Amino acid sequence: MCEAHAFILRDGSEEKIMENVDQVEVENDEIRMINIFGEQKMLRAKIRSYSNSERKIVLEAIDPAIK
Amino acid sequence: MCEAHAFILRDGSEEKIMENVDQVEVENDEIRMINIFGEQKMLRAKIRSYSNSERKIVLEAIDPAIK
Repeated sequence: MCEAHAFILRDGSEEKIMENVDQVEVENDEIRMINIFGEQKMLRAKIRSYSNSERKIVLEAIDPAIK
Repeated sequence: MCEAHAFILRDGSEEKIMENVDQVEVENDEIRMINIFGEQKMLRAKIRSYSNSERKIVLEAIDPAIK
């Protein structure tokens, strides 16, 4: 069990948006994430950083207004 | 030990560029990767996908000519 959790950076603070992320796919401005339970999330964002040791994926919203 | 390996997509095929990646940071068109031994690599690329279960990070070169 070494899945990372995904956070989105909005107005300088990080908000957790998905736990136990298994897959992340980037297609232009869209990010598609799938967790270990097969749940999906799509959002307009880009990857900012990934840390294996911190189990953390940080995304940055392209449109800050999106939820 | 569940670090992923990084591959770069070039001309349709994947080439391994770093094993046991711990950190990935994206800054504009630059990607900085650090492995568990503290070795660093910087390259002009973007993240294409990440898979925890496959232990794989796939990057796409921005300038196909770079090595």
